[in-house]
Amino acid sequence: MTATIHRLDAHPQPSLDPMIALVAGDMNLVNAVILDRMQSQIPLIPELAGHLIAGGGKRMRPMLTLAGAALLGYTGNRHHRLAAAVEFIHTATLLHDDVVDGSDLRRGKRTANIIWGNPASVLVGDFLFSKSFELMVEDGSLKALKILSNASAVIAEGEVNQLTATRRINLGEERYLDIIGAKTAALFAAACRIAAVVAEREEAAETALDAYGRNLGIAFQLVDDAIDYVSDADTMGKDAGDDFREGKVTLPVILAYARGDEAERTFWKDAIEGRRTSDDDLAHAIRLIRDSRAVDDTLARARHYGQRAIDALGMFASGRAKDAMVEAVEFAIARAY
Amino acid sequence: MTATIHRLDAHPQPSLDPMIALVAGDMNLVNAVILDRMQSQIPLIPELAGHLIAGGGKRMRPMLTLAGAALLGYTGNRHHRLAAAVEFIHTATLLHDDVVDGSDLRRGKRTANIIWGNPASVLVGDFLFSKSFELMVEDGSLKALKILSNASAVIAEGEVNQLTATRRINLGEERYLDIIGAKTAALFAAACRIAAVVAEREEAAETALDAYGRNLGIAFQLVDDAIDYVSDADTMGKDAGDDFREGKVTLPVILAYARGDEAERTFWKDAIEGRRTSDDDLAHAIRLIRDSRAVDDTLARARHYGQRAIDALGMFASGRAKDAMVEAVEFAIARAY
Repeated sequence: MTATIHRLDAHPQPSLDPMIALVAGDMNLVNAVILDRMQSQIPLIPELAGHLIAGGGKRMRPMLTLAGAALLGYTGNRHHRLAAAVEFIHTATLLHDDVVDGSDLRRGKRTANIIWGNPASVLVGDFLFSKSFELMVEDGSLKALKILSNASAVIAEGEVNQLTATRRINLGEERYLDIIGAKTAALFAAACRIAAVVAEREEAAETALDAYGRNLGIAFQLVDDAIDYVSDADTMGKDAGDDFREGKVTLPVILAYARGDEAERTFWKDAIEGRRTSDDDLAHAIRLIRDSRAVDDTLARARHYGQRAIDALGMFASGRAKDAMVEAVEFAIARAY
Repeated sequence: MTATIHRLDAHPQPSLDPMIALVAGDMNLVNAVILDRMQSQIPLIPELAGHLIAGGGKRMRPMLTLAGAALLGYTGNRHHRLAAAVEFIHTATLLHDDVVDGSDLRRGKRTANIIWGNPASVLVGDFLFSKSFELMVEDGSLKALKILSNASAVIAEGEVNQLTATRRINLGEERYLDIIGAKTAALFAAACRIAAVVAEREEAAETALDAYGRNLGIAFQLVDDAIDYVSDADTMGKDAGDDFREGKVTLPVILAYARGDEAERTFWKDAIEGRRTSDDDLAHAIRLIRDSRAVDDTLARARHYGQRAIDALGMFASGRAKDAMVEAVEFAIARAY
């Protein structure tokens, strides 16, 4: 017997559709919980929360909880409430992120902070965050509560880390990885890990699903950060060059800066510190990134983490769920191509 | 035997000192937990959190948890972690409040949002909020988790309610009470109630402590709102007239407006909607409030809730803890005189 070896390139055009189909029934139930729990007698709360929650997100994180549960053959219903809690944590984070970044566009729509103002976004974020803990308490698993409260603290820490790193051209790849590991990968990891908790599986299954989610999350963020230098607002629902104008030091910039000559480094320093942010400057930045192969190598890093995510699934039986989870990794990376 | 009847006016100059002395030993342990758990490898986090946490607050809410535990004769140590969790929730709320209100002064010091900016205040608030849940999870009581996660959601809801009520002169006393019941009294109630949870006392003790905290919280906020029209920045560490300038409709304004003639109502409408906010306008507002006895009657309302708080303690044995809790109510009200 030969082991099944899953490689990143199994599908010519990888898609998230198999995972979406795998969890479609469960996701309807998760959506019902989400809609129910974002209600309030204060009309602004469901209005603002609904704008983002109904706003065309992929529900990637709750989908991972559901897919993980399917992988483990779990047939109960505890994962619906916990998946909704995961989505609420994520939504709260997005609301606060957009305030912190002063963003005006997300998923191709105007952000809540632009429509309703920063104060409302901060407070509705707090509301959703509290609601996520209410959902976890109803589930009653202290283990799930521990995993998700820890992930929340790590996310906030990662966001502060990123904030203090803004406009610092000397950030370096290691600290960048710390940041995305905290602000993005921690919730991916927790979303996957709690599937093993509800299925009451052994520690090794928890660890494996955590590793799958964590590496997928890092790959996902690396690809997002690469896309910001290759796409435009029409295709991505995100303003290309947002990171550039906000002085966010992502891996494409770190690599282009590290590989640049003196003049190029001066350009990057000026740009990241906010002195060169015109459209011409952005065009120049994209040229430098292309010429230094910084996007290619950011994507090579993403492929490395993607392969690790896939290999973390090695202990689980082959089947529809595992195939879908493998293809989701391929999809996350293929978005950039 | 005659029942002991506690009245609001037992002490000519009521003080918080008996309660502070009652819980001093416990509070040192709570402070140790607080200092330990606000640490992070990201230096901005303890720096910003410490500014507010070390900034001379009375630690009123965790003190209530400790006093409640003393009242019930609890001798364990679970309440230290939970009291720290309560203080973290409160601190997170203050950080976000100051962002929402654009406040520049709290307890006589510059606010964190002025020193470090709104983004840092939002994110460090999120961090402390997450940490509070980590502390509760470590304690492991699902009951305490439920009480505090519910209080958190109610607080956020109350804050949004207050936000949507800003600059609306027609608010009315009922909706005002809804708002302060949520944004202030819910955490006072929860802080007291969890003392009965750790002491593993019967439901009636939980309910009584909840009622004590809730009524004290309402009285506390009523007095705060009255003080804003009688004090100055030097004595209160808060800018007198802050509420006025921010267009916050508090009970003194609601009463003065309800009792005013047409010209006075026009003035109040203009002021609350932001068209009359000069120092002269504030002086005029204070005059109208004094002439309509609006502060006196706000304080009469506070005394009503204060007496209810004291009477909620009726089931508990007399002694040092109960005396301190009664005098704390008197102190909360006497602050205005």
